[in-house]
Amino acid sequence: MYDLIIIGGGPAGITAGIYASRKKLKTLLLTKDFVGQWGNISEVENYPAFEKISGMELVKRFLNHLKNFEIEIKEGEEVKKIKKNNEVFEIETKKDNKFQSRAVIVTSGRNPRPLGVPGEKDFIGRGISYCTICDAPFFKDKFAAVIGGGNAGFRAALDLIPYAKRIYILEASPKVRADEIYQERASQAGKVEIIFNTKVLEIKGKDKAPKSPLATGVPAEGLGIGSIVYQNLISQEKKELPIDGVFVEIGSIPATSFLNTLVDFNEMGEVKIDSKTCTTKTPGLFAAGDVTDIEYKQIIIAASEGAKAALSAYNYLQTNEQN
Amino acid sequence: MYDLIIIGGGPAGITAGIYASRKKLKTLLLTKDFVGQWGNISEVENYPAFEKISGMELVKRFLNHLKNFEIEIKEGEEVKKIKKNNEVFEIETKKDNKFQSRAVIVTSGRNPRPLGVPGEKDFIGRGISYCTICDAPFFKDKFAAVIGGGNAGFRAALDLIPYAKRIYILEASPKVRADEIYQERASQAGKVEIIFNTKVLEIKGKDKAPKSPLATGVPAEGLGIGSIVYQNLISQEKKELPIDGVFVEIGSIPATSFLNTLVDFNEMGEVKIDSKTCTTKTPGLFAAGDVTDIEYKQIIIAASEGAKAALSAYNYLQTNEQN
Repeated sequence: MYDLIIIGGGPAGITAGIYASRKKLKTLLLTKDFVGQWGNISEVENYPAFEKISGMELVKRFLNHLKNFEIEIKEGEEVKKIKKNNEVFEIETKKDNKFQSRAVIVTSGRNPRPLGVPGEKDFIGRGISYCTICDAPFFKDKFAAVIGGGNAGFRAALDLIPYAKRIYILEASPKVRADEIYQERASQAGKVEIIFNTKVLEIKGKDKAPKSPLATGVPAEGLGIGSIVYQNLISQEKKELPIDGVFVEIGSIPATSFLNTLVDFNEMGEVKIDSKTCTTKTPGLFAAGDVTDIEYKQIIIAASEGAKAALSAYNYLQTNEQN
Repeated sequence: MYDLIIIGGGPAGITAGIYASRKKLKTLLLTKDFVGQWGNISEVENYPAFEKISGMELVKRFLNHLKNFEIEIKEGEEVKKIKKNNEVFEIETKKDNKFQSRAVIVTSGRNPRPLGVPGEKDFIGRGISYCTICDAPFFKDKFAAVIGGGNAGFRAALDLIPYAKRIYILEASPKVRADEIYQERASQAGKVEIIFNTKVLEIKGKDKAPKSPLATGVPAEGLGIGSIVYQNLISQEKKELPIDGVFVEIGSIPATSFLNTLVDFNEMGEVKIDSKTCTTKTPGLFAAGDVTDIEYKQIIIAASEGAKAALSAYNYLQTNEQN
């Protein structure tokens, strides 16, 4: 029986672990891995005290910090179910392991939102990617489309600049939503084109796509995409863009499949919390970071939310002990 | 005319500056100095990614990060007054300089709470201190009292351990409130004694204090304290403890003297904010960090609050621009 189980190993989960173990709570951290969203960022420039650091390097530094303290960590464990009976939480993982604790912090983060168009699933890993830092090197001298013109889309485009010949950012709105600093850098590279008011309709394989002077001669081993079909949302005109790869950066969805009626969700499927204390509607169950309905999703903010949740869990355990 | 003026140079203010300048807001940061509460912490162990770092070193790293971006910084400026007229904020400093902006973020932090007992003011800088990291070295082989048994009090005691002969922590409650990790370290040192249920009544000078075998032979140059008089809150008994110095660690009060009816305050004098967005009751005026009514006061949390306030200020300025 643990005092506290933390679900998730992102900035919120690790920071919750640091704070909980400093409070000497008997803590278990369960996580699929320590990569998640942040590990795939090529350069983090807005975690204060680091002018520039790769996502993976930041993960390592957080982990080293955590391992300084007494805490049990189980990697490779995805949570399947969570129940509460008589003030005790029982957590079941996909490996059918069961763990018990008196308090739980959910920091399961988010997964990339899929486009949901024909062809997308067929080419995952063969031209469709949700991670530029992983896959950008495969696009040397190739043509890439990035779907989404927010910060994530622009960061994806910046990751591609050293490799791709040309990068198209397809954005649904009539305006770019990325930080000005990213826009400037993309513009300076001279090979990023933004196409506004677009809706992606289909991803076509090389066999189905029309031949084009744009498409590169020899396809990279394994890349199978030929073109992307999109619609202009104003003129309604449909267009087909010859392309070698598609990077999907249209946001993410909270990872909550293991949660049930123990928490409430907002209309975006995020866990509703009291934003001062990270409490949910179930006493002893806390949630922190990008899985919740906080306004802004940022590494520094997720870390802070993890600290808050751990301090609240500590207060909850202290109060319950006295009863 | 600036887009944004940030008042304060702590973790909230600097992080707000990083986020605002990344959004290319024309930003001015006004601060008395870059020391504040955090600069006086000897070892910060809970800012994620740093296992151990001195407060001043962390300040430097935050500042270096900030100076990477385009932002105007004016040190040595304490804000005296703030007004809003026709969507424009006017800020007046104690040096009678005036600055204008369309949005403001208040991150003025907190000042140490004084004991408020006879003798305290007389010995400030001559035995009374609110900063162990500044003054602990003056207490070599001396007897020191720390008032307050929370984290700050224990950190003060830990700062004194390498110097002082004996350290008394005077705590008002019957229980220690500090993190277990600090309690263990204090206990291991073998020279820290905790006196519970105490109320400090008076600080006496060497001339007025009774001679005692405890008090050290030769007083350090400038130290004038002879004893501290306190009452046991249960037995009501008054006691006098011969002592060379007193470190006051009984919390802090929000630094809000320049604020007026533009914001609401809670019963502790903290600025009320919407905890999701750092907005106050005045459109365009945001507040972040330890000056506000957030639940937990921590460096990582203050930094996060600064990021939130800057993102909210950016949204506010974008919306107002369109009107």
